[in-house]
Amino acid sequence: MMRTRPLKVALLGCGVVGSEVARIMTTHADDLAARIGAPVELAGVAVRRPSRVREGIDPALVTTDATALVKRGDIDVVVEVIGGIEPARTLITTAFEHGASVVSANKALLAQDGAALHAAAGEHGKDLYYEAAVAGAIPLIRPLRESLAGDKINRVMGIVNGTTNFILDKMDSTGAGYQEALDEATALGYAEADPTADVEGFDAAAKAAILAGIAFHTRVRLDDVYREGMTEVTAADFASAKEMGCTIKLLAICERAADGGSVTARVHPAMIPLTHPLASVRGAYNAVFVESDAAGQLMFYGPGAGGAPTASAVLGDLVAVCRNRLSGATGPGESAYAALTVSPMGDVVTRYHISLDVADKPGVLAQVATVFAEHGVSIDTVRQQGRQDGGGEASLVVVTHRASDASLTGTVEALRKLDTVRGVASIMRVEGE
Amino acid sequence: MMRTRPLKVALLGCGVVGSEVARIMTTHADDLAARIGAPVELAGVAVRRPSRVREGIDPALVTTDATALVKRGDIDVVVEVIGGIEPARTLITTAFEHGASVVSANKALLAQDGAALHAAAGEHGKDLYYEAAVAGAIPLIRPLRESLAGDKINRVMGIVNGTTNFILDKMDSTGAGYQEALDEATALGYAEADPTADVEGFDAAAKAAILAGIAFHTRVRLDDVYREGMTEVTAADFASAKEMGCTIKLLAICERAADGGSVTARVHPAMIPLTHPLASVRGAYNAVFVESDAAGQLMFYGPGAGGAPTASAVLGDLVAVCRNRLSGATGPGESAYAALTVSPMGDVVTRYHISLDVADKPGVLAQVATVFAEHGVSIDTVRQQGRQDGGGEASLVVVTHRASDASLTGTVEALRKLDTVRGVASIMRVEGE
Repeated sequence: MMRTRPLKVALLGCGVVGSEVARIMTTHADDLAARIGAPVELAGVAVRRPSRVREGIDPALVTTDATALVKRGDIDVVVEVIGGIEPARTLITTAFEHGASVVSANKALLAQDGAALHAAAGEHGKDLYYEAAVAGAIPLIRPLRESLAGDKINRVMGIVNGTTNFILDKMDSTGAGYQEALDEATALGYAEADPTADVEGFDAAAKAAILAGIAFHTRVRLDDVYREGMTEVTAADFASAKEMGCTIKLLAICERAADGGSVTARVHPAMIPLTHPLASVRGAYNAVFVESDAAGQLMFYGPGAGGAPTASAVLGDLVAVCRNRLSGATGPGESAYAALTVSPMGDVVTRYHISLDVADKPGVLAQVATVFAEHGVSIDTVRQQGRQDGGGEASLVVVTHRASDASLTGTVEALRKLDTVRGVASIMRVEGE
Repeated sequence: MMRTRPLKVALLGCGVVGSEVARIMTTHADDLAARIGAPVELAGVAVRRPSRVREGIDPALVTTDATALVKRGDIDVVVEVIGGIEPARTLITTAFEHGASVVSANKALLAQDGAALHAAAGEHGKDLYYEAAVAGAIPLIRPLRESLAGDKINRVMGIVNGTTNFILDKMDSTGAGYQEALDEATALGYAEADPTADVEGFDAAAKAAILAGIAFHTRVRLDDVYREGMTEVTAADFASAKEMGCTIKLLAICERAADGGSVTARVHPAMIPLTHPLASVRGAYNAVFVESDAAGQLMFYGPGAGGAPTASAVLGDLVAVCRNRLSGATGPGESAYAALTVSPMGDVVTRYHISLDVADKPGVLAQVATVFAEHGVSIDTVRQQGRQDGGGEASLVVVTHRASDASLTGTVEALRKLDTVRGVASIMRVEGE
């Protein structure tokens, strides 16, 4: 039963993702209509530079006045693919006020103001969908929100930034250093001219905040997410990882504490065993590994970015929101009923791989081991080797049992004060065992 | 805003999955209520043997009269985890007639009678959800039906049977033969006493029919699925696969033809490159690889069977169906609007790895090559080796370029007629390149 009056869609932004959304809406119009139960029509496209030629988009639809577009009153769904905080935030809330539902791909905004946006959507009885905001094309938010709705998620661990995965994969497979791998990523278009948001983990942290919120039914703010970039990962770290049967990935990890009463969210490079499904995620691909009480271990894999993949996620949301509008229903809103405490990084419990430069003389290992013991950090293995360079230095590689981040930090501070410890070459967490 | 009148759930079947569904409904009652917006109550449990002790289930709820239970009229959702065709089919249609929506884990029934069940659901304005019917806990049907609703899926290729993946993985990693690996699977509880449904591909074929229907918006009947089991895969095949940089998996493959006008669905063992994400799926895990126009390559990975994982999928559906009931909406029904032709196996185009036992004398290769050429099957590589056993026999391994199954079948028939070909040791398709 097909309704003939089309649903009207306003597109905010017409860059890489927006133009692909517009293209698919045109080329797959019949398919979309069949799936929704009514045709969808592109009713307006707000852009900053209207002079740019946009193939396949009727110039009469193009406007620079995004505010007027969302205020028109006849718009059913606003698709926001501008990115950034403002004007996206105001446009979205204005859209709700004027009767539209919203599909957004805006991770930064959702991570920072998700609660307020959800509240605005709820107040006006409208939908806010944002599958494209995390892990691009990979259906992830919907499975977490809906398929696992009857389960209890204990951990979400993911490679959610394609740029850094490309760089780390390159370092792993070629032995290249960070800068060399970054240069290649830039040359191939996988890294932006200013790669800070990616390599320093800001992008991944925003996604971690969104994922943690959905997984644990708890508000997790961007500030709650511990963040450590991957610019200091070295070829030597990869060599250490290989000796452990591991590789290194930049991971976003959202965990429920063992007692169930609190959660943590963090982004940092970590060693993971080569046998872990995340270890084989290559190039710019993303993957998210989910552990739950009943379902067990699940993984979702796919392209994390790019115009067409992101547009695919946007269109999936668009179909759902349009179907909701036709039936007069709304999809699941924000779910924060669990209201768990978000604990700081110091409470995180994991294992550590620590490389120390030490004096090559008797008794050093005993000193170092004493410091670990005093801080309650139990050592799993230790490996000591002379540097062979005649400088009287040796390296000591310590792998710990599980310990809190606070204990480890205390241990490292005390180690630095030892005369015999010349330096802490690297500290790397070990995950996924 | 919490409604206080509970939604009533009737559970049909209380075996491994059903008892886990009942357990989670009890232990996670508050969570479920928060996610749904109303409490859910187990209103009745239909079993065959009421005398069996069922921990945690109020004996007053247990009945042997499933028909009376679904006819009660006050049931909101019927959860069918009996399996098999009858009485499940009649109970489900009766449930729709008496006002209930249905969550089912019944792949055999969905594959055989999905269209009729969807029609019955639609006629009564009720939901029919069945995430648990394919790949257990892995959220797959919902992402395909909803997240990728704006995309065009071209291929679904999956490991959808855990028993056979366990056996093949064991053969690959230990060099064991089929029988030895099957015995271990049986001893560990991964294979049933009668493993026919698994090892002959019947189970996977049912899932392939369901997946193809959803992916291509086309009715695909169980009879449309080509099916070949994995009982004839040998240690020698694994040795051949290793030489190709491949492993062997039992795959369910649903493909859109290059011209877009028809689809095929098939289940058979195949070589896939070790670099393919499906190659690293170990043990009894399942994974489904999806290729679409916009999203690109996605993979969904997780446990394909087991009480708790399957219950997780059932509960995700239960939450969705309950939410739909509260809002007066229904989720997406059957989508068969594309109505594509389902082509027979002969139309499938892929590559082949063929091992021939041939006479060890000059001119054999030329004869064999001529037969391939006459049938329009182009040879990629050929490798000839003497048997070293002095019997005057050699083996010839041919890997073809892409060719239709019909051409390959014709080629093999003609090869068998050659005097110099003593036997066709194996034919294995090569996928995922």
